[in-house]
Amino acid sequence: MAEAQMGDAVVLVSGGLDSATVLAMAGAAGYRCHTLSFDYGQRHRAELAAAERIAQDMKACSHKVVRLDLGTIGGSALTDESIQVPECSSEGIPITYVPARNTVFLSIALGWAEVLNASAIFIGVNAVDYSGYPDCRPEYIEAFQVLANLATRAGVEGRPLTIKTPLIDLSKSDIIRHGLALGVDYSKTVSCYQANSEGLACGRCDSCRLRRKGFLDLGISDPTLYQHHAG
Amino acid sequence: MAEAQMGDAVVLVSGGLDSATVLAMAGAAGYRCHTLSFDYGQRHRAELAAAERIAQDMKACSHKVVRLDLGTIGGSALTDESIQVPECSSEGIPITYVPARNTVFLSIALGWAEVLNASAIFIGVNAVDYSGYPDCRPEYIEAFQVLANLATRAGVEGRPLTIKTPLIDLSKSDIIRHGLALGVDYSKTVSCYQANSEGLACGRCDSCRLRRKGFLDLGISDPTLYQHHAG
Repeated sequence: MAEAQMGDAVVLVSGGLDSATVLAMAGAAGYRCHTLSFDYGQRHRAELAAAERIAQDMKACSHKVVRLDLGTIGGSALTDESIQVPECSSEGIPITYVPARNTVFLSIALGWAEVLNASAIFIGVNAVDYSGYPDCRPEYIEAFQVLANLATRAGVEGRPLTIKTPLIDLSKSDIIRHGLALGVDYSKTVSCYQANSEGLACGRCDSCRLRRKGFLDLGISDPTLYQHHAG
Repeated sequence: MAEAQMGDAVVLVSGGLDSATVLAMAGAAGYRCHTLSFDYGQRHRAELAAAERIAQDMKACSHKVVRLDLGTIGGSALTDESIQVPECSSEGIPITYVPARNTVFLSIALGWAEVLNASAIFIGVNAVDYSGYPDCRPEYIEAFQVLANLATRAGVEGRPLTIKTPLIDLSKSDIIRHGLALGVDYSKTVSCYQANSEGLACGRCDSCRLRRKGFLDLGISDPTLYQHHAG
């Protein structure tokens, strides 16, 4: 998928719109991409199937799924079945926030990056739509990069690793525009927090609403596959 | 296990000598201790049984085991069956180093700390005997603490979390001396990188050698249970 040679990169892919765009951007920038997904007890398991499909379509060099039972520690509507996924926005840190999720995901990506001798980790965090998530802010990403270069053999030996967040300042419609220009097929992505087993979206959760608005703002048709009750 | 009230703490316990000592220290300091172990594809699974035994003996408030297949990303003699555990010391970063292991463990501890509203995470890293491991150095721990307080709801809301490393500058014999004073029963701990299913130690790997030397230096008898071939 690459022309120039930028070395290897680990790309976190969730199966959603954002990370599919990041994967396309990393490939276009010339990285050899190794995609990483997590089976972390999330409700919307259709996203794991989407992640694998996207990795194959975009010709990732390799794709791994790491099992990790974050449900054991609880605390989020996305992993704890006793907490309901909300269908209206609220102030502050949302209940769909999974405790330390990006830190855990980046840490495991860091381990794989070390094994691969990769020079970058790509993650689709976004500080515009997810301002309520502490681990989507630029200062958090900068702190992780400092940590990464103290934590690893590569860092100690003077081969620094960069954490790449190409979406961090983009609106949802900007993300979609970039992805379409790079040929991303968004009908294959699943963003919904409570997609059904076929990957059909609810159309009502925060993630569905943000995604739908992105397509509306761009004035193009939304390829998302919704469950029948979505209005 | 506590007199004073220091709040809740997550204590990483591996089943080994160091983390059992840390648990005793955290309890003596007045923390309500919640112990966390990882089933991460390590060869020496007897340590998980030891961790549970130690948590019970020391009356931890709760004990969790998080499954996590670090073997998927490979790269270490401790998780990759195609790499042999060495029986002599070597220069530089050892092959028993698991890529980004402490970062992954601390990240998951951070998630649980957030759910518990804990004020501290205790980890038994040691910069004396493990100088070859980048993620056992004080500057690494400081960077993780900075990250932790940017990553979390508690940090954002002004309730900082501290990463406690009471063993970081202690020799193995100092660690044992502190633990014995606090009543730790080291016969219940398993340190060996390749213990058998009954938890008997090989007596030859780096971890066994360090442990044995600690008891020798103190001039007290070593309660470790060895396999028959250990000299």
